Amino acid sequence: MQRSTIIVAGGIGTRMGGPIPKQFLLLKGKPLLCWTIEAFHAYDAALPIVLVLPEQQITMWRTLCIGHHFHVEHDVVAGGVERFHSVKNGLATVKHDGLVAVHDGVRPLVSVALIDRCFRAAQEHGAAIPVVPISSSVREVDGDDSRPLDRSRLRAVQTPQCFRADLLREAFGRPYDPAFTDEATLVQRGGTPVHLVDGEDRNLKVTTPMDLRVAELMLRGTGE
Amino acid sequence: MQRSTIIVAGGIGTRMGGPIPKQFLLLKGKPLLCWTIEAFHAYDAALPIVLVLPEQQITMWRTLCIGHHFHVEHDVVAGGVERFHSVKNGLATVKHDGLVAVHDGVRPLVSVALIDRCFRAAQEHGAAIPVVPISSSVREVDGDDSRPLDRSRLRAVQTPQCFRADLLREAFGRPYDPAFTDEATLVQRGGTPVHLVDGEDRNLKVTTPMDLRVAELMLRGTGE
Repeated sequence: MQRSTIIVAGGIGTRMGGPIPKQFLLLKGKPLLCWTIEAFHAYDAALPIVLVLPEQQITMWRTLCIGHHFHVEHDVVAGGVERFHSVKNGLATVKHDGLVAVHDGVRPLVSVALIDRCFRAAQEHGAAIPVVPISSSVREVDGDDSRPLDRSRLRAVQTPQCFRADLLREAFGRPYDPAFTDEATLVQRGGTPVHLVDGEDRNLKVTTPMDLRVAELMLRGTGE
Repeated sequence: MQRSTIIVAGGIGTRMGGPIPKQFLLLKGKPLLCWTIEAFHAYDAALPIVLVLPEQQITMWRTLCIGHHFHVEHDVVAGGVERFHSVKNGLATVKHDGLVAVHDGVRPLVSVALIDRCFRAAQEHGAAIPVVPISSSVREVDGDDSRPLDRSRLRAVQTPQCFRADLLREAFGRPYDPAFTDEATLVQRGGTPVHLVDGEDRNLKVTTPMDLRVAELMLRGTGE
């Protein structure tokens, strides 16, 4: 079954506090996005990779690729206003009816094993996403009130989120809803149950300077 | 209003993979628990501090205090089978009717400002706990099924959890329920709403070797 991956790096990176979009920050001397793209390339060197970037960052990205001698083949597509529109733009370039992974550009440490698990589960179930347990107690706020949730039933959602292409197209064919959080939610709304796959602690989302340091530690293996 | 804190360090530390209970692991050369106790001492040098430890670790703890020249005054109480019993044992030593904080021993980076916020809110509302937003999408699992939750309404719960002593005594006077997760849940069950206070990202719970490295980075300020 044909496969593609859409890597979404739409962030303008304000949370990092610097002028550099977070997907371009250096992890062990190499932009985060290079790590992310290489992870999918390591899974399958023939896998078509579509990178969705804010239009104003595309030139910077191409310059970085040259400067860092980054040669993994990938297509670059301009993103939209919100993640929804960015994924939709990426999806428009996928022409086959196989499987599509949608992955956060700022999850550079995703493993080949996890990518494989997600694709396999999507092939079997139509929709599959990686999740990990939540380590703290969680409350749900309701106005001035809040109530404890049963933590044992909660899971934090990661990417890659993998789907049969037709299901994903159908989901993104519906009008944009500002309540959009992730692709799985959209697909599930169309009636397809989402299969949960074991995620990985090291598949962290790098959104703060501290996350970047943690990613560095993970690469060094000092935290293992 | 009189105040006390109960620091619960009941973990046998198996998640760290080593023979050393995690509350004794060294953070910048000093056991985690020393940092935690010092944080409350810095908030108020006269604050009575009750440390609850598994009975078999008490001698090791006293030895560590001597070895590390740790002189902050505190009482040590033997813990019970579960956290519920440990907190209950600690609470039995608190004789006043003021405010009681219950804090995880493995949250060494709690700030004086946060301790102060929690005590003040407990004085006003009876029960107060620190919470932080959750940065990932979250699902609730129900058998083979799962559904996305509205992340904007979810909060991760931290400590110190602060209460009027009478409310906490009443809560711990009821029979043990294996569904117990934290003190706030118990108190709320008695009918007192729990006030939510802004927690802190750096108030992390150190339960893995990676957490310990992150705590070190936070102390160095390199992630700021």
